[in-house]
Amino acid sequence: MLLDDTIAAIATPLGEGGLAVIRLSGREALSIADKSFQPVGKSSINPSAAPTHTIHYGRIIRHGQSVDEVLLAVMRAPRTLTREDVVEITCHGGLLPAKLVLDTVLENGARLAEPGEFTKRAFLNGRIDLAQAEAVADLIHARTELALTAANEQLAGKLSQRINALRDDMVKTLAHVEAHIDFPDEDISPDTKVKLIGRLERGLEFMEELLRTSNEGQILRRGIRAAIIGRPNAGKSSLLNQLLGRDRAIVSHIPGTTRDTIEETANVRGLPIVFVDTAGLREAGDEIEVEGIRRSRETLSKAEFILHVLDASEPLTMADENYLAEFSDKKRILVRNKMDLPAKLDLQTGIHAPVVEVCCLSGKGIETLKDAIKSMVWAGEIRAEMLQVMINSRHQEALNRARSATQRTITALKGDETLELVAMDLRIAVNAVGEIVGKTTTEDILDSIFSQFCIGK
Amino acid sequence: MLLDDTIAAIATPLGEGGLAVIRLSGREALSIADKSFQPVGKSSINPSAAPTHTIHYGRIIRHGQSVDEVLLAVMRAPRTLTREDVVEITCHGGLLPAKLVLDTVLENGARLAEPGEFTKRAFLNGRIDLAQAEAVADLIHARTELALTAANEQLAGKLSQRINALRDDMVKTLAHVEAHIDFPDEDISPDTKVKLIGRLERGLEFMEELLRTSNEGQILRRGIRAAIIGRPNAGKSSLLNQLLGRDRAIVSHIPGTTRDTIEETANVRGLPIVFVDTAGLREAGDEIEVEGIRRSRETLSKAEFILHVLDASEPLTMADENYLAEFSDKKRILVRNKMDLPAKLDLQTGIHAPVVEVCCLSGKGIETLKDAIKSMVWAGEIRAEMLQVMINSRHQEALNRARSATQRTITALKGDETLELVAMDLRIAVNAVGEIVGKTTTEDILDSIFSQFCIGK
Repeated sequence: MLLDDTIAAIATPLGEGGLAVIRLSGREALSIADKSFQPVGKSSINPSAAPTHTIHYGRIIRHGQSVDEVLLAVMRAPRTLTREDVVEITCHGGLLPAKLVLDTVLENGARLAEPGEFTKRAFLNGRIDLAQAEAVADLIHARTELALTAANEQLAGKLSQRINALRDDMVKTLAHVEAHIDFPDEDISPDTKVKLIGRLERGLEFMEELLRTSNEGQILRRGIRAAIIGRPNAGKSSLLNQLLGRDRAIVSHIPGTTRDTIEETANVRGLPIVFVDTAGLREAGDEIEVEGIRRSRETLSKAEFILHVLDASEPLTMADENYLAEFSDKKRILVRNKMDLPAKLDLQTGIHAPVVEVCCLSGKGIETLKDAIKSMVWAGEIRAEMLQVMINSRHQEALNRARSATQRTITALKGDETLELVAMDLRIAVNAVGEIVGKTTTEDILDSIFSQFCIGK
Repeated sequence: MLLDDTIAAIATPLGEGGLAVIRLSGREALSIADKSFQPVGKSSINPSAAPTHTIHYGRIIRHGQSVDEVLLAVMRAPRTLTREDVVEITCHGGLLPAKLVLDTVLENGARLAEPGEFTKRAFLNGRIDLAQAEAVADLIHARTELALTAANEQLAGKLSQRINALRDDMVKTLAHVEAHIDFPDEDISPDTKVKLIGRLERGLEFMEELLRTSNEGQILRRGIRAAIIGRPNAGKSSLLNQLLGRDRAIVSHIPGTTRDTIEETANVRGLPIVFVDTAGLREAGDEIEVEGIRRSRETLSKAEFILHVLDASEPLTMADENYLAEFSDKKRILVRNKMDLPAKLDLQTGIHAPVVEVCCLSGKGIETLKDAIKSMVWAGEIRAEMLQVMINSRHQEALNRARSATQRTITALKGDETLELVAMDLRIAVNAVGEIVGKTTTEDILDSIFSQFCIGK
């Protein structure tokens, strides 16, 4: 990782919009800006002569020609995103102006930033820790306000504070143990040992508490996949529309792996649920039916739960029964659609699944269905303090290692093992906890985290 | 048009990116920023107390909760985009943070901006004229560097300067004529009349000159549509790929009116050419063939020219001949593909179309084809001074009216018509020319121009 070069990237999403921002960070950010920028106006000043946190109007000049009129913001280290000198150039939106401004600064000495490299620099320069850096990605990808709140809490350092407190505590214990290794004549007194074990057990409890949030953390971050199944005309598409409802504006179309599967994310009680509609497949023509069914199977196997839509106004058909039998071991909700018509559907007893009555045309029953979905995927209440410490899968993995090592440490201490062995396990635990905030990291961990970011972040 | 309220919009393209910008403009921009923003850090200051063109770090607070960490830029009137107080809030990219920041400022008193409303205010407040405002949209939509240069020249006021000079000249003539109406005893002397006519004729010449750029202006702005036709396996798709070539990175996928038509814009000698590949249609299965052919016809009728791909390694087929006959009255280029194989294709003489030999596999001949495309759509050289005055269809329409009225004025003057009549025609001409830069406009004209902008511009 080189930190002495200057990186640049388009920081806004690609597309035609009002404006685009090209971001520069590094030692040469201001001198590259000087070469690329021609100030316009009376109080015109070169970027390198400008005070920090000021904005300047002018043109980007490339090969002697004006590329665009821009506003150029100068932010000097260390009070910046990366703790390095940062320049942000706001040009007109549209693919071409942004691309040409970027080309200009690259030709004048900047290097194209890798995905996440600005945030990575913020981490390497100590402005934020690793859990906070991850929160930046969570913020960008947040699909519900609940997910956004959780990301904001983590970015503000709520999780990091607790992890640091935990680690400090463990480091103190480790120091104590190591002191006794260095002075082998002094033994740890039984009283002290009890205290140390007590402290380690409190740490263990806290790890367990954090680990219990991991499931919810995954849901808020990635959403949870639900497949909508049912025979033709049971009302799968209208159910999907009802669930998307008014929130459709913030719904994103995720291109499916096949062009026949529709995926839409809806905000259900604050949880991002990715509904997969396999409707098109089963109802397709003869020729592609076989392939369709194969894809449908694949989609269903990936879903974390199933909404099985039944037409309550008609008796159970063979197709219904097949579905009921086929997915008997999946988490599912049976949705009795057309509740406004006289009920003719008799569901066998002995089906272990919640049943919800709805009318997809009028929307009746949809709120009850949402409650049922929430209780199926989320244990208990959504508490505000939970949002502060919602761990991700990397944290979970590190905490699992820390937990095992702490358990071994406690066993070793209780069993009067050598202090070297105790210290070794405890050091493993301390390092594992430290990984969460980035106090102990490898280049591999950093790469895997930051490569998931978009360019310009 | 209210100018005393404060408008707000997300100014960056929608999507997940490193950052998003929410723009505010109007009298209350700073006080709304005060209500929405909580400064963070030692030198923290409220937006309304901040000096102009400065940047501030803090949080957006909504309902007591932090929505996002942001940078807030304060730009005070009149040295701003709109000549009003402007605040730009840079938040994390992603749909949700940007939406919530926008919601916050809307709840605190801003109104959602209409498309193009920021640029419209810049025009209404006199920062730019109407031709410059149009150039902003051209910049954003520019698909080649040539188009971008033309837009930049127009934004810099090159066209406006010439239009203003033309109009000033005509206004002087009008004043002279009107003076004689007010003092009917004095006649215009024959000498003066010759001078006035000379001046009007020079104006007319300049109008003609500008009108001659309109075709090229349209091409640079909207691109020109070319359909690729030919029988199956003649090489249509590989030809399209060769034409898109390395420039593919800046190519945009425009969703076609039907999902079977592929449209891709390529940069051909600086000109944006929209290639329409109808390949999928004709080669589709039986059932949709009829509908396919109907759509194919529609696409072809909209194309401004045709690339007819022929397999030079095989004798002419019936399908080829049908195509040749069917499109005999369209502008077209015959592309003899597979030039590397022994030639077996005999083209009848008497076909009035350029013939270019290519090999779509190796790319041989593609540069010659590009030259042929350029000569087909663009008359003569692309000269730098042309780019300064490339008019759009609105300018063309106004200039056509101005030209007729000027011609009538000259005829009236020469024919010794009453000065009232002369003045009336000349006033029509002056107004028509003034429309281009927005000196004479109606709300209708403004609406039709600015509604084509995106929101946040």
